[in-house]
Amino acid sequence: MTRKELFENIKQKKSFLCIGLDTDITKIPPHLLHTEYPIFEFNKHIIDATHDLCVSYKPNIAFYETEGVKGWISLEKTIDYINKNYPQIFTIADAKRGDIGNTSKMYAKAFLEKMDFDSITVAPYMGEDSITPFFEYKNKWVILLALTSNKGASDFQTLSLGDNKQVFQQILETSQKWGNPENMMYVVGATKAEMLTEIRKIVPDNFLLIPGVGAQGGSLQDVVKYGMNKECGLLVNSSRGIIYASNEKDFAEKARMEAEKLQKEMEKLLTPLL
Amino acid sequence: MTRKELFENIKQKKSFLCIGLDTDITKIPPHLLHTEYPIFEFNKHIIDATHDLCVSYKPNIAFYETEGVKGWISLEKTIDYINKNYPQIFTIADAKRGDIGNTSKMYAKAFLEKMDFDSITVAPYMGEDSITPFFEYKNKWVILLALTSNKGASDFQTLSLGDNKQVFQQILETSQKWGNPENMMYVVGATKAEMLTEIRKIVPDNFLLIPGVGAQGGSLQDVVKYGMNKECGLLVNSSRGIIYASNEKDFAEKARMEAEKLQKEMEKLLTPLL
Repeated sequence: MTRKELFENIKQKKSFLCIGLDTDITKIPPHLLHTEYPIFEFNKHIIDATHDLCVSYKPNIAFYETEGVKGWISLEKTIDYINKNYPQIFTIADAKRGDIGNTSKMYAKAFLEKMDFDSITVAPYMGEDSITPFFEYKNKWVILLALTSNKGASDFQTLSLGDNKQVFQQILETSQKWGNPENMMYVVGATKAEMLTEIRKIVPDNFLLIPGVGAQGGSLQDVVKYGMNKECGLLVNSSRGIIYASNEKDFAEKARMEAEKLQKEMEKLLTPLL
Repeated sequence: MTRKELFENIKQKKSFLCIGLDTDITKIPPHLLHTEYPIFEFNKHIIDATHDLCVSYKPNIAFYETEGVKGWISLEKTIDYINKNYPQIFTIADAKRGDIGNTSKMYAKAFLEKMDFDSITVAPYMGEDSITPFFEYKNKWVILLALTSNKGASDFQTLSLGDNKQVFQQILETSQKWGNPENMMYVVGATKAEMLTEIRKIVPDNFLLIPGVGAQGGSLQDVVKYGMNKECGLLVNSSRGIIYASNEKDFAEKARMEAEKLQKEMEKLLTPLL
Protein backbone atom coordinates (compact mmCIF):
# COMPACT_ATOMS: atom_id res chain seq x y z
CA MET A 1 0.00 0.00 0.00
CA THR A 2 1.29 3.50 -0.85
CA ARG A 3 1.21 6.48 1.49
CA LYS A 4 -1.33 8.14 -0.78
CA GLU A 5 -3.63 5.12 -0.61
CA LEU A 6 -3.32 5.00 3.16
CA PHE A 7 -4.24 8.68 3.46
CA GLU A 8 -7.20 8.15 1.11
CA ASN A 9 -8.43 5.31 3.33
CA ILE A 10 -8.08 7.52 6.40
CA LYS A 11 -10.13 10.27 4.77
CA GLN A 12 -12.76 7.89 3.51
CA LYS A 13 -13.20 6.08 6.81
CA LYS A 14 -12.64 9.22 8.88
CA SER A 15 -10.40 7.14 11.07
CA PHE A 16 -6.72 6.56 11.73
CA LEU A 17 -7.42 3.68 14.06
CA CYS A 18 -5.25 0.58 14.14
CA ILE A 19 -6.67 -2.37 16.06
CA GLY A 20 -4.11 -4.55 17.78
CA LEU A 21 -4.92 -8.23 17.45
CA ASP A 22 -3.04 -9.26 20.61
CA THR A 23 -5.20 -12.32 20.89
CA ASP A 24 -4.54 -14.15 24.13
CA ILE A 25 -6.19 -17.56 24.24
CA THR A 26 -6.74 -17.20 28.01
CA LYS A 27 -8.80 -14.04 27.47
CA ILE A 28 -11.15 -14.93 24.64
CA PRO A 29 -14.79 -15.92 25.18
CA PRO A 30 -15.04 -19.56 26.34
CA HIS A 31 -17.54 -20.57 23.66
CA LEU A 32 -14.81 -20.09 21.00
CA LEU A 33 -12.45 -22.55 22.63
CA HIS A 34 -14.27 -25.48 21.06
CA THR A 35 -13.47 -24.36 17.52
CA GLU A 36 -10.42 -25.72 15.72
CA TYR A 37 -8.54 -22.41 15.68
CA PRO A 38 -10.00 -20.29 18.49
CA ILE A 39 -7.55 -17.40 17.99
CA PHE A 40 -8.40 -17.12 14.32
CA GLU A 41 -12.11 -17.52 15.05
CA PHE A 42 -11.92 -14.67 17.55
CA ASN A 43 -9.97 -12.45 15.12
CA LYS A 44 -12.41 -13.15 12.29
CA HIS A 45 -15.35 -11.95 14.35
CA ILE A 46 -13.46 -8.87 15.58
CA ILE A 47 -12.39 -8.03 12.02
CA ASP A 48 -15.87 -8.48 10.54
CA ALA A 49 -17.31 -6.26 13.26
CA THR A 50 -14.77 -3.43 13.04
CA HIS A 51 -13.24 -3.28 9.54
CA ASP A 52 -15.18 -0.18 8.51
CA LEU A 53 -14.06 1.75 11.61
CA CYS A 54 -10.31 1.22 11.36
CA VAL A 55 -7.66 1.49 8.65
CA SER A 56 -5.24 -1.05 10.05
CA TYR A 57 -4.91 -4.32 11.98
CA LYS A 58 -1.78 -5.21 13.90
CA PRO A 59 -1.36 -8.77 15.19
CA ASN A 60 1.41 -8.94 17.77
CA ILE A 61 3.34 -12.04 16.72
CA ALA A 62 4.24 -13.09 20.30
CA PHE A 63 0.60 -14.01 20.98
CA TYR A 64 0.67 -16.44 18.06
CA GLU A 65 4.16 -17.89 18.60
CA THR A 66 3.29 -18.74 22.17
CA GLU A 67 0.70 -21.19 20.82
CA GLY A 68 3.25 -23.00 18.64
CA VAL A 69 2.27 -24.46 15.30
CA LYS A 70 -1.43 -23.87 15.94
CA GLY A 71 -0.73 -20.23 16.71
CA TRP A 72 1.28 -19.88 13.53
CA ILE A 73 -1.58 -21.35 11.50
CA SER A 74 -3.96 -18.90 13.21
CA LEU A 75 -1.68 -16.02 12.23
CA GLU A 76 -1.55 -17.15 8.61
CA LYS A 77 -5.32 -17.61 8.52
CA THR A 78 -5.81 -14.14 10.02
CA ILE A 79 -3.63 -12.28 7.52
CA ASP A 80 -5.12 -14.28 4.63
CA TYR A 81 -8.62 -13.43 5.84
CA ILE A 82 -7.87 -9.72 5.98
CA ASN A 83 -6.07 -9.62 2.63
CA LYS A 84 -8.84 -11.53 0.89
CA ASN A 85 -11.87 -9.79 2.40
CA TYR A 86 -10.62 -6.32 3.26
CA PRO A 87 -7.70 -5.59 0.93
CA GLN A 88 -7.80 -1.86 1.69
CA ILE A 89 -6.71 -2.54 5.30
CA PHE A 90 -3.09 -1.70 6.14
CA THR A 91 -1.67 -4.75 7.92
CA ILE A 92 1.17 -4.61 10.43
CA ALA A 93 3.15 -7.63 11.64
CA ASP A 94 4.13 -6.42 15.10
CA ALA A 95 7.22 -8.59 15.26
CA LYS A 96 9.99 -6.22 16.41
CA ARG A 97 12.52 -8.27 14.47
CA GLY A 98 16.06 -7.32 13.50
CA ASP A 99 19.19 -9.39 12.86
CA ILE A 100 22.27 -9.34 10.62
CA GLY A 101 21.43 -8.61 6.96
CA ASN A 102 21.46 -12.21 5.81
CA THR A 103 18.96 -13.10 8.54
CA SER A 104 16.74 -10.01 8.40
CA LYS A 105 16.21 -11.00 4.77
CA MET A 106 14.62 -14.23 6.03
CA TYR A 107 12.27 -12.34 8.34
CA ALA A 108 11.38 -9.96 5.52
CA LYS A 109 10.49 -12.90 3.29
CA ALA A 110 8.40 -14.52 6.05
CA PHE A 111 6.29 -11.48 6.85
CA LEU A 112 6.28 -9.23 3.76
CA GLU A 113 6.34 -11.85 1.02
CA LYS A 114 4.96 -15.18 2.21
CA MET A 115 2.34 -13.83 4.61
CA ASP A 116 2.02 -10.63 2.58
CA PHE A 117 1.73 -8.14 5.44
CA ASP A 118 1.98 -4.50 4.34
CA SER A 119 4.51 -3.74 7.05
CA ILE A 120 6.58 -5.07 9.93
CA THR A 121 7.84 -3.46 13.13
CA VAL A 122 11.64 -3.60 13.36
CA ALA A 123 14.04 -3.05 16.28
CA PRO A 124 16.86 -0.61 15.50
CA TYR A 125 19.69 -1.83 17.74
CA MET A 126 21.65 -3.74 15.09
CA GLY A 127 21.71 -0.81 12.64
CA GLU A 128 21.55 -0.31 8.91
CA ASP A 129 22.13 -3.79 7.49
CA SER A 130 19.56 -5.25 9.90
CA ILE A 131 16.88 -2.89 8.56
CA THR A 132 17.50 -2.34 4.85
CA PRO A 133 16.53 -5.91 3.76
CA PHE A 134 12.95 -5.02 4.71
CA PHE A 135 12.97 -2.18 2.17
CA GLU A 136 13.42 -4.55 -0.74
CA TYR A 137 9.67 -5.09 -1.14
CA LYS A 138 7.81 -2.47 -3.17
CA ASN A 139 4.98 -0.66 -1.38
CA LYS A 140 5.83 -2.46 1.85
CA TRP A 141 6.87 -0.67 5.01
CA VAL A 142 9.36 -0.77 7.84
CA ILE A 143 7.97 0.53 11.13
CA LEU A 144 11.06 1.28 13.19
CA LEU A 145 10.97 1.41 16.98
CA ALA A 146 11.93 4.90 18.08
CA LEU A 147 10.34 5.75 21.43
CA THR A 148 8.21 3.02 22.95
CA SER A 149 5.41 3.42 25.49
CA ASN A 150 6.69 1.07 28.21
CA LYS A 151 8.55 1.94 31.39
CA GLY A 152 11.80 0.44 30.08
CA ALA A 153 11.86 3.04 27.28
CA SER A 154 13.78 5.30 29.67
CA ASP A 155 16.57 2.77 30.16
CA PHE A 156 18.31 3.27 26.82
CA GLN A 157 16.07 5.11 24.34
CA THR A 158 16.27 8.45 26.10
CA LEU A 159 19.95 8.31 27.12
CA SER A 160 21.65 11.58 26.30
CA LEU A 161 24.35 11.48 23.64
CA GLY A 162 25.99 14.54 25.12
CA ASP A 163 25.16 16.95 22.31
CA ASN A 164 21.65 17.60 23.56
CA LYS A 165 20.41 14.64 21.58
CA GLN A 166 18.89 11.43 22.89
CA VAL A 167 19.47 7.93 21.47
CA PHE A 168 15.99 7.69 19.89
CA GLN A 169 16.51 11.07 18.18
CA GLN A 170 19.74 9.79 16.67
CA ILE A 171 17.87 6.71 15.46
CA LEU A 172 15.26 8.92 13.80
CA GLU A 173 17.98 11.04 12.15
CA THR A 174 20.22 8.22 10.98
CA SER A 175 17.38 6.08 9.67
CA GLN A 176 16.19 8.94 7.47
CA LYS A 177 19.13 8.05 5.21
CA TRP A 178 17.89 4.47 4.80
CA GLY A 179 14.19 4.91 4.12
CA ASN A 180 11.76 7.68 3.26
CA PRO A 181 8.18 8.67 4.08
CA GLU A 182 6.93 6.25 1.41
CA ASN A 183 8.39 3.14 3.05
CA MET A 184 9.21 3.91 6.67
CA MET A 185 7.14 4.74 9.73
CA TYR A 186 8.17 5.02 13.38
CA VAL A 187 6.75 3.65 16.62
CA VAL A 188 6.30 6.50 19.08
CA GLY A 189 4.55 5.87 22.40
CA ALA A 190 1.56 8.05 23.20
CA THR A 191 2.55 8.34 26.84
CA LYS A 192 5.03 10.95 25.69
CA ALA A 193 2.77 13.03 23.45
CA GLU A 194 4.53 16.34 24.13
CA MET A 195 7.75 14.81 22.74
CA LEU A 196 5.99 14.52 19.38
CA THR A 197 6.81 18.19 18.74
CA GLU A 198 10.53 17.44 18.85
CA ILE A 199 10.04 14.24 16.85
CA ARG A 200 8.14 16.06 14.10
CA LYS A 201 11.12 18.41 13.68
CA ILE A 202 13.22 15.39 12.65
CA VAL A 203 10.58 13.38 10.76
CA PRO A 204 7.91 15.81 9.56
CA ASP A 205 6.45 13.57 6.88
CA ASN A 206 6.71 9.98 8.11
CA PHE A 207 3.69 8.19 9.48
CA LEU A 208 3.94 7.44 13.20
CA LEU A 209 2.44 4.32 14.76
CA ILE A 210 1.26 5.32 18.22
CA PRO A 211 0.63 2.62 20.79
CA GLY A 212 -0.30 3.34 24.37
CA VAL A 213 -3.59 5.20 23.88
CA GLY A 214 -6.16 3.81 26.29
CA ALA A 215 -4.91 0.97 28.53
CA GLN A 216 -1.44 2.52 28.67
CA GLY A 217 -2.81 6.00 29.43
CA GLY A 218 -2.02 8.25 26.46
CA SER A 219 -4.40 10.97 25.24
CA LEU A 220 -5.68 10.99 21.66
CA GLN A 221 -6.15 14.77 21.67
CA ASP A 222 -2.53 15.33 22.65
CA VAL A 223 -1.26 12.91 20.03
CA VAL A 224 -3.14 14.79 17.33
CA LYS A 225 -2.17 18.20 18.71
CA TYR A 226 1.54 17.43 18.69
CA GLY A 227 1.87 14.75 16.04
CA MET A 228 -0.58 15.16 13.14
CA ASN A 229 0.76 16.38 9.80
CA LYS A 230 -0.99 17.42 6.59
CA GLU A 231 -1.52 13.85 5.48
CA CYS A 232 -2.58 12.80 8.96
CA GLY A 233 0.70 10.94 9.52
CA LEU A 234 -0.73 8.98 12.42
CA LEU A 235 -1.91 5.47 13.05
CA VAL A 236 -3.16 5.18 16.62
CA ASN A 237 -3.33 1.68 18.00
CA SER A 238 -5.69 0.27 20.57
CA SER A 239 -5.67 -3.40 21.46
CA ARG A 240 -7.04 -4.58 24.80
CA GLY A 241 -9.54 -1.71 25.16
CA ILE A 242 -11.27 -2.88 21.99
CA ILE A 243 -10.81 -6.62 21.61
CA TYR A 244 -11.50 -7.52 25.25
CA ALA A 245 -14.44 -5.15 25.74
CA SER A 246 -16.50 -8.23 26.55
CA ASN A 247 -15.73 -11.84 27.29
CA GLU A 248 -19.25 -13.03 26.38
CA LYS A 249 -21.01 -13.97 23.17
CA ASP A 250 -21.42 -10.24 22.44
CA PHE A 251 -17.64 -9.69 22.31
CA ALA A 252 -17.54 -8.59 18.66
CA GLU A 253 -20.48 -6.22 19.09
CA LYS A 254 -18.89 -4.67 22.18
CA ALA A 255 -15.55 -4.41 20.37
CA ARG A 256 -17.35 -2.50 17.62
CA MET A 257 -18.81 -0.11 20.18
CA GLU A 258 -15.37 0.64 21.60
CA ALA A 259 -13.84 1.04 18.14
CA GLU A 260 -16.67 3.35 17.18
CA LYS A 261 -16.04 5.62 20.17
CA LEU A 262 -12.46 6.08 19.03
CA GLN A 263 -13.47 6.51 15.40
CA LYS A 264 -15.98 9.25 16.30
CA GLU A 265 -13.32 11.06 18.28
CA MET A 266 -10.89 10.69 15.40
CA GLU A 267 -13.47 12.00 12.93
CA LYS A 268 -13.68 15.25 14.90
CA LEU A 269 -9.93 15.56 15.13
CA LEU A 270 -9.54 14.87 11.41
CA THR A 271 -11.93 17.66 10.36
CA PRO A 272 -9.18 20.11 9.31
CA LEU A 273 -7.91 17.55 6.78
CA LEU A 274 -11.23 16.38 5.31
CA MET B 1 21.14 -25.73 32.80
CA THR B 2 23.25 -24.07 35.49
CA ARG B 3 26.51 -22.23 34.90
CA LYS B 4 28.35 -24.96 36.77
CA GLU B 5 26.87 -27.66 34.54
CA LEU B 6 27.78 -25.69 31.44
CA PHE B 7 31.38 -25.31 32.60
CA GLU B 8 31.53 -29.04 33.41
CA ASN B 9 30.36 -29.83 29.88
CA ILE B 10 32.99 -27.51 28.45
CA LYS B 11 35.74 -29.23 30.44
CA GLN B 12 34.53 -32.71 29.61
CA LYS B 13 34.18 -32.05 25.88
CA LYS B 14 37.22 -29.76 25.78
CA SER B 15 35.12 -27.44 23.68
CA PHE B 16 33.21 -24.19 23.98
CA LEU B 17 31.81 -24.51 20.49
CA CYS B 18 28.25 -23.50 19.65
CA ILE B 19 26.98 -24.64 16.26
CA GLY B 20 24.52 -22.30 14.59
CA LEU B 21 21.69 -24.17 12.93
CA ASP B 22 20.94 -21.42 10.41
CA THR B 23 19.42 -23.95 8.11
CA ASP B 24 18.54 -22.41 4.75
CA ILE B 25 16.45 -24.69 2.58
CA THR B 26 18.13 -23.33 -0.56
CA LYS B 27 21.55 -24.44 0.72
CA ILE B 28 20.98 -27.97 1.97
CA PRO B 29 21.92 -31.05 -0.06
CA PRO B 30 19.34 -31.74 -2.77
CA HIS B 31 18.78 -35.37 -1.75
CA LEU B 32 17.14 -34.17 1.51
CA LEU B 33 14.52 -32.10 -0.28
CA HIS B 34 12.40 -35.19 -0.87
CA THR B 35 11.91 -35.83 2.86
CA GLU B 36 8.84 -34.46 4.65
CA TYR B 37 10.79 -31.97 6.79
CA PRO B 38 14.08 -31.32 4.97
CA ILE B 39 15.26 -28.69 7.46
CA PHE B 40 14.77 -31.02 10.40
CA GLU B 41 16.32 -33.92 8.48
CA PHE B 42 19.39 -31.81 7.76
CA ASN B 43 19.66 -30.67 11.41
CA LYS B 44 19.29 -34.22 12.71
CA HIS B 45 22.24 -35.41 10.64
CA ILE B 46 24.36 -32.40 11.62
CA ILE B 47 23.52 -32.90 15.29
CA ASP B 48 24.23 -36.64 15.27
CA ALA B 49 27.58 -35.99 13.58
CA THR B 50 28.77 -33.15 15.83
CA HIS B 51 27.13 -33.43 19.29
CA ASP B 52 30.31 -34.66 21.00
CA LEU B 53 32.37 -31.77 19.64
CA CYS B 54 30.19 -28.87 20.73
CA VAL B 55 28.42 -27.81 23.92
CA SER B 56 25.62 -25.83 22.31
CA TYR B 57 23.31 -25.57 19.30
CA LYS B 58 21.76 -22.31 18.23
CA PRO B 59 18.96 -22.35 15.65
CA ASN B 60 18.36 -18.87 14.27
CA ILE B 61 14.57 -18.59 14.29
CA ALA B 62 14.38 -16.48 11.11
CA PHE B 63 15.43 -19.46 9.01
CA TYR B 64 12.45 -21.44 10.35
CA GLU B 65 9.86 -18.66 10.28
CA THR B 66 10.61 -17.98 6.66
CA GLU B 67 9.29 -21.47 5.86
CA GLY B 68 5.97 -20.81 7.64
CA VAL B 69 4.15 -23.61 9.45
CA LYS B 70 6.48 -26.25 8.04
CA GLY B 71 9.48 -24.31 9.30
CA TRP B 72 7.92 -23.97 12.73
CA ILE B 73 7.33 -27.72 12.88
CA SER B 74 10.97 -28.27 11.85
CA LEU B 75 12.08 -26.00 14.69
CA GLU B 76 9.97 -27.87 17.24
CA LYS B 77 11.23 -31.21 15.96
CA THR B 78 14.83 -29.97 16.15
CA ILE B 79 14.67 -28.77 19.75
CA ASP B 80 12.77 -31.91 20.79
CA TYR B 81 15.39 -34.06 19.11
CA ILE B 82 18.26 -32.33 20.93
CA ASN B 83 16.51 -32.33 24.31
CA LYS B 84 15.60 -35.99 24.03
CA ASN B 85 18.87 -37.36 22.68
CA TYR B 86 21.50 -34.94 23.93
CA PRO B 87 20.11 -33.36 27.11
CA GLN B 88 23.54 -32.05 28.16
CA ILE B 89 23.58 -29.67 25.17
CA PHE B 90 22.92 -26.00 25.94
CA THR B 91 20.26 -24.83 23.49
CA ILE B 92 19.89 -21.25 22.30
CA ALA B 93 16.84 -19.86 20.52
CA ASP B 94 18.47 -17.11 18.48
CA ALA B 95 15.32 -15.03 18.28
CA LYS B 96 16.44 -11.50 19.25
CA ARG B 97 12.99 -10.82 20.69
CA GLY B 98 11.94 -8.01 23.02
CA ASP B 99 8.61 -6.26 23.55
CA ILE B 100 6.59 -4.66 26.37
CA GLY B 101 6.50 -6.86 29.49
CA ASN B 102 3.10 -8.37 28.82
CA THR B 103 4.28 -9.45 25.37
CA SER B 104 7.83 -10.55 26.24
CA LYS B 105 6.12 -12.94 28.65
CA MET B 106 4.48 -14.60 25.63
CA TYR B 107 7.82 -14.98 23.86
CA ALA B 108 9.37 -16.39 27.04
CA LYS B 109 6.61 -18.96 27.27
CA ALA B 110 7.00 -19.91 23.60
CA PHE B 111 10.75 -20.48 23.69
CA LEU B 112 11.70 -21.29 27.30
CA GLU B 113 8.63 -23.23 28.40
CA LYS B 114 6.80 -24.77 25.46
CA MET B 115 9.82 -25.49 23.30
CA ASP B 116 12.07 -25.80 26.34
CA PHE B 117 15.15 -24.03 25.02
CA ASP B 118 17.78 -23.32 27.69
CA SER B 119 18.11 -19.73 26.54
CA ILE B 120 16.96 -17.04 24.16
CA THR B 121 18.71 -14.05 22.62
CA VAL B 122 16.98 -10.79 23.50
CA ALA B 123 17.27 -7.27 22.04
CA PRO B 124 17.85 -4.56 24.67
CA TYR B 125 16.25 -1.48 23.11
CA MET B 126 12.96 -1.59 25.03
CA GLY B 127 14.67 -1.84 28.44
CA GLU B 128 14.01 -3.57 31.73
CA ASP B 129 10.38 -4.69 31.50
CA SER B 130 11.04 -6.14 28.03
CA ILE B 131 13.80 -8.36 29.43
CA THR B 132 12.86 -9.40 32.97
CA PRO B 133 9.96 -11.71 31.94
CA PHE B 134 12.58 -14.04 30.47
CA PHE B 135 14.19 -14.41 33.91
CA GLU B 136 11.10 -16.04 35.36
CA TYR B 137 12.20 -19.52 34.33
CA LYS B 138 14.61 -21.30 36.66
CA ASN B 139 17.94 -22.35 35.14
CA LYS B 140 17.03 -20.65 31.87
CA TRP B 141 19.04 -17.83 30.37
CA VAL B 142 18.71 -14.46 28.71
CA ILE B 143 21.42 -13.74 26.16
CA LEU B 144 21.30 -9.99 25.71
CA LEU B 145 22.61 -8.29 22.57
CA ALA B 146 25.47 -6.00 23.56
CA LEU B 147 27.90 -5.57 20.67
CA THR B 148 27.01 -7.42 17.49
CA SER B 149 29.35 -8.50 14.71
CA ASN B 150 27.64 -6.82 11.76
CA LYS B 151 28.51 -3.55 10.05
CA GLY B 152 25.41 -1.83 11.45
CA ALA B 153 26.73 -2.34 15.00
CA SER B 154 28.50 1.00 14.63
CA ASP B 155 25.28 2.88 13.88
CA PHE B 156 23.91 2.95 17.44
CA GLN B 157 25.70 0.44 19.68
CA THR B 158 28.96 2.36 19.81
CA LEU B 159 27.53 5.87 20.00
CA SER B 160 29.28 7.84 22.71
CA LEU B 161 27.19 8.86 25.70
CA GLY B 162 29.48 11.79 26.34
CA ASP B 163 31.04 10.47 29.54
CA ASN B 164 33.55 8.24 27.76
CA LYS B 165 30.98 5.47 27.67
CA GLN B 166 29.33 3.90 24.65
CA VAL B 167 25.71 2.77 24.40
CA PHE B 168 26.57 -0.96 24.56
CA GLN B 169 28.65 -0.37 27.69
CA GLN B 170 25.69 1.30 29.36
CA ILE B 171 23.56 -1.69 28.38
CA LEU B 172 26.09 -4.03 30.00
CA GLU B 173 26.16 -1.91 33.15
CA THR B 174 22.43 -1.34 33.52
CA SER B 175 21.47 -4.94 32.78
CA GLN B 176 23.75 -6.16 35.58
CA LYS B 177 21.00 -4.97 37.94
CA TRP B 178 18.42 -7.20 36.25
CA GLY B 179 20.21 -10.50 35.92
CA ASN B 180 23.37 -12.18 37.16
CA PRO B 181 26.05 -14.55 35.83
CA GLU B 182 23.74 -17.50 36.58
CA ASN B 183 20.97 -16.38 34.23
CA MET B 184 22.37 -13.82 31.82
CA MET B 185 24.91 -13.92 28.99
CA TYR B 186 25.80 -11.31 26.39
CA VAL B 187 26.26 -11.39 22.63
CA VAL B 188 29.61 -9.84 21.74
CA GLY B 189 30.86 -9.97 18.16
CA ALA B 190 34.27 -11.50 17.58
CA THR B 191 35.17 -8.91 14.97
CA LYS B 192 35.95 -6.62 17.89
CA ALA B 193 38.02 -8.99 20.02
CA GLU B 194 40.22 -6.27 21.51
CA MET B 195 37.10 -4.62 22.94
CA LEU B 196 36.61 -7.73 25.09
CA THR B 197 39.15 -6.31 27.56
CA GLU B 198 36.90 -3.34 28.25
CA ILE B 199 33.81 -5.56 28.30
CA ARG B 200 35.35 -7.93 30.86
CA LYS B 201 35.88 -4.94 33.19
CA ILE B 202 32.09 -4.48 33.29
CA VAL B 203 30.97 -8.14 33.15
CA PRO B 204 33.86 -10.26 34.47
CA ASP B 205 31.79 -13.36 35.24
CA ASN B 206 29.03 -13.57 32.64
CA PHE B 207 29.28 -15.98 29.75
CA LEU B 208 29.66 -14.29 26.37
CA LEU B 209 28.17 -15.70 23.19
CA ILE B 210 30.59 -14.83 20.41
CA PRO B 211 29.38 -14.92 16.82
CA GLY B 212 31.50 -13.87 13.89
CA VAL B 213 34.37 -16.33 14.15
CA GLY B 214 35.06 -17.81 10.72
CA ALA B 215 32.81 -16.51 7.91
CA GLN B 216 32.62 -13.07 9.56
CA GLY B 217 36.37 -12.90 10.10
CA GLY B 218 37.05 -12.99 13.87
CA SER B 219 40.03 -14.80 15.42
CA LEU B 220 39.52 -17.52 18.03
CA GLN B 221 42.91 -16.84 19.62
CA ASP B 222 42.08 -13.18 20.16
CA VAL B 223 38.66 -14.00 21.60
CA VAL B 224 40.27 -16.30 24.16
CA LYS B 225 43.13 -13.89 24.87
CA TYR B 226 40.83 -10.98 25.67
CA GLY B 227 37.62 -12.68 26.75
CA MET B 228 38.17 -15.96 28.61
CA ASN B 229 37.60 -16.03 32.36
CA LYS B 230 38.29 -18.69 34.99
CA GLU B 231 35.16 -20.64 34.11
CA CYS B 232 35.80 -20.23 30.40
CA GLY B 233 32.94 -17.74 30.08
CA LEU B 234 32.80 -18.14 26.32
CA LEU B 235 30.56 -19.82 23.82
CA VAL B 236 31.94 -19.33 20.35
CA ASN B 237 29.50 -19.80 17.53
CA SER B 238 30.13 -21.01 14.01
CA SER B 239 27.28 -21.59 11.58
CA ARG B 240 27.95 -21.54 7.84
CA GLY B 241 31.57 -22.69 8.11
CA ILE B 242 30.38 -25.94 9.67
CA ILE B 243 26.92 -26.76 8.42
CA TYR B 244 27.57 -25.91 4.77
CA ALA B 245 31.02 -27.50 4.55
CA SER B 246 29.60 -29.74 1.83
CA ASN B 247 26.43 -29.75 -0.23
CA GLU B 248 26.71 -33.45 -1.09
CA LYS B 249 25.74 -36.69 0.63
CA ASP B 250 28.83 -36.34 2.85
CA PHE B 251 27.57 -33.05 4.33
CA ALA B 252 27.35 -34.35 7.92
CA GLU B 253 30.78 -35.96 7.76
CA LYS B 254 32.32 -32.75 6.38
CA ALA B 255 30.51 -30.72 9.02
CA ARG B 256 32.07 -32.95 11.64
CA MET B 257 35.53 -32.35 10.18
CA GLU B 258 35.06 -28.58 10.38
CA ALA B 259 33.67 -28.79 13.91
CA GLU B 260 36.60 -30.97 14.92
CA LYS B 261 39.12 -28.42 13.65
CA LEU B 262 37.58 -25.81 15.91
CA GLN B 263 37.28 -28.22 18.84
CA LYS B 264 40.96 -29.14 18.57
CA GLU B 265 41.93 -25.49 18.54
CA MET B 266 39.67 -24.87 21.53
CA GLU B 267 41.17 -27.82 23.40
CA LYS B 268 44.61 -26.18 23.19
CA LEU B 269 43.26 -22.82 24.30
CA LEU B 270 41.38 -24.41 27.20
CA THR B 271 44.49 -26.11 28.62
CA PRO B 272 44.99 -23.61 31.46
CA LEU B 273 41.49 -24.40 32.77
CA LEU B 274 41.53 -28.20 32.46
